Amino acid sequence: MADKNRQILFAARPQGEPKDSDYKLVETPVPEPGPGEVLLRTVYLGLDPIIRLRMNANTYWPSLELGKPLHARAVCAVVKSNNPDFTPNDLLVTQGIWADYMISNGKGMDGRPLPKLDPARGSVTAPLHVLGVTGLTAYCGLLEIGQPKEGETVVVSGASGAVGSVVGQIAKIKGCRVVGIAGGADKCAFVEKELGFDAAIDYKRADFAAALKAACPKGVDVYFENVGGAMFDAVFPLLNLHARVPVCGTVSEYNVTERENVPDKLPALLLATLGKRLTIKGFVISDWFHKMPDFQRDAGGWLREGKLKYKEEFVDGLENAPRAFNAMLKAQTFGKVIVRVSPDPSR
Amino acid sequence: MADKNRQILFAARPQGEPKDSDYKLVETPVPEPGPGEVLLRTVYLGLDPIIRLRMNANTYWPSLELGKPLHARAVCAVVKSNNPDFTPNDLLVTQGIWADYMISNGKGMDGRPLPKLDPARGSVTAPLHVLGVTGLTAYCGLLEIGQPKEGETVVVSGASGAVGSVVGQIAKIKGCRVVGIAGGADKCAFVEKELGFDAAIDYKRADFAAALKAACPKGVDVYFENVGGAMFDAVFPLLNLHARVPVCGTVSEYNVTERENVPDKLPALLLATLGKRLTIKGFVISDWFHKMPDFQRDAGGWLREGKLKYKEEFVDGLENAPRAFNAMLKAQTFGKVIVRVSPDPSR
Repeated sequence: MADKNRQILFAARPQGEPKDSDYKLVETPVPEPGPGEVLLRTVYLGLDPIIRLRMNANTYWPSLELGKPLHARAVCAVVKSNNPDFTPNDLLVTQGIWADYMISNGKGMDGRPLPKLDPARGSVTAPLHVLGVTGLTAYCGLLEIGQPKEGETVVVSGASGAVGSVVGQIAKIKGCRVVGIAGGADKCAFVEKELGFDAAIDYKRADFAAALKAACPKGVDVYFENVGGAMFDAVFPLLNLHARVPVCGTVSEYNVTERENVPDKLPALLLATLGKRLTIKGFVISDWFHKMPDFQRDAGGWLREGKLKYKEEFVDGLENAPRAFNAMLKAQTFGKVIVRVSPDPSR
Repeated sequence: MADKNRQILFAARPQGEPKDSDYKLVETPVPEPGPGEVLLRTVYLGLDPIIRLRMNANTYWPSLELGKPLHARAVCAVVKSNNPDFTPNDLLVTQGIWADYMISNGKGMDGRPLPKLDPARGSVTAPLHVLGVTGLTAYCGLLEIGQPKEGETVVVSGASGAVGSVVGQIAKIKGCRVVGIAGGADKCAFVEKELGFDAAIDYKRADFAAALKAACPKGVDVYFENVGGAMFDAVFPLLNLHARVPVCGTVSEYNVTERENVPDKLPALLLATLGKRLTIKGFVISDWFHKMPDFQRDAGGWLREGKLKYKEEFVDGLENAPRAFNAMLKAQTFGKVIVRVSPDPSR
């Protein structure tokens, strides 16, 4: 066990892309758990774009506090336990921080003991994405808001990413035609060949909008929005009567601070919303945690049946978390970005 | 009975505001009803903004055919009948045309005989608005899409108009705080004092956005959109978490052909849709005709109880329909615009 606790603090609210000076790596003593508490060693951190929004002041999400460690879903190992529910070397998944160690009362947001991970039952990192909140986001956004029907066309942006890949695979399971939007030939090949989407369209192509249209000969019934910007502009004209647009994220916009002047698009958006009877609906996964048992039952089954695949991009070292986070926001990563902070005791 | 049949034909698709040359008044012989048909004399035409959208080519609605008379809901008197369901002087409400006379098979879109109006049972013009498709639009858009709950704040634009006035009154009946947006002191006084809204805000005020905000101290839970443009921009920042935005019309935009360049608003719209979990949903009333019996039962009761009031603006003479239609699109009218084409036999 290391004798110090590195933490990456949130040092300044970024203007645009987070800079090195927006983070601060500090070394502090390893904390001691109090009565009922456990000392956790961070094994894996799952990075998620929403953290960029929480770096802003006055957003719709709880702002991250300056001077405190950044947040992430984490797989942790119990180091010391003053809590009868846990013993050293237990592996847990919890709301974590960008740090080597943290103290926990052993309870989740629902007040119940944090779930232990059993490596014999499958990947211990899957709960950071395909079996966790990320997967739940895909599941609820697609099924509850998108409400895809068999034979309909579903388009998802960020198709090779942690949410988009699950959205598309669930849509395939539900019998839809599924078209993914991703950046570059490698990601598109993965989406088509590994994930089994009907088509993947590279948004970096000069003829992106035309290619997308050609891939959706019957128009688009559900557009699951992860990216925003040029993706939205390309999909919007293809939406069918009564199409649904679950808005899950607009990651292409999170670092943007200045907007081009363009002819006002809102009137056309509202008019098409009216004429096509569109439903555009935003959602935040914390409103849907009650669906976690349904989701884990379904997703667990699909994983076992080989119907749900995923890709992880590992980054070694806590100190590299900021760089990995920035790369993710710029779509330079491929799959769920997971920071390996310390050795995985299950390997 | 006149010996000629004036018709106002749709002569050209307008660019922006319809011009005189986009209409053509022609005189034709009065038609003769064939077997099973009736000859109808138009008594009243109810003008509706959707007709402006149907004047465009390639819209989401059936385009009006060039060279044919324009459409409107109409109250008509039977002149001659070859149909056993009708006798001369019956008053009917039907899908009509901008003409002195028309031929009908006596059946509505549902294939059933057109409903006869009994002047003894109430206003014969109410089926053109508060008891007809206009009222159904307000009813379904508010209750089915807006889903207002007691104590919530509902804002409606075009509040003194045929749809907006009904929306606000139903929202009051459902126990909401109701704020209307209207143009000018007279309309605002009507909305507050006659219709009983909690507040009416004049969009022509220099401090419109601030006044609207002050009138919605708990934010906005339902925004019923009839107008678009500056109204939407003012209401949008006030929307609460989980707010609903039924998009019924954007009448301020129907004549606009050029857009100002502005910093792209779409990213902020999508981000707020996400963060506030908004539902923005367009609807077209033809999808909701199955609700007509529920609506007529409820609205009939509210009318009898004095809970549902309305205002009509009569315009005399078929030849003045184009001018009245343009005035309506420019919000220069006040209440449902009804063209008196020929004498009302019930008066």
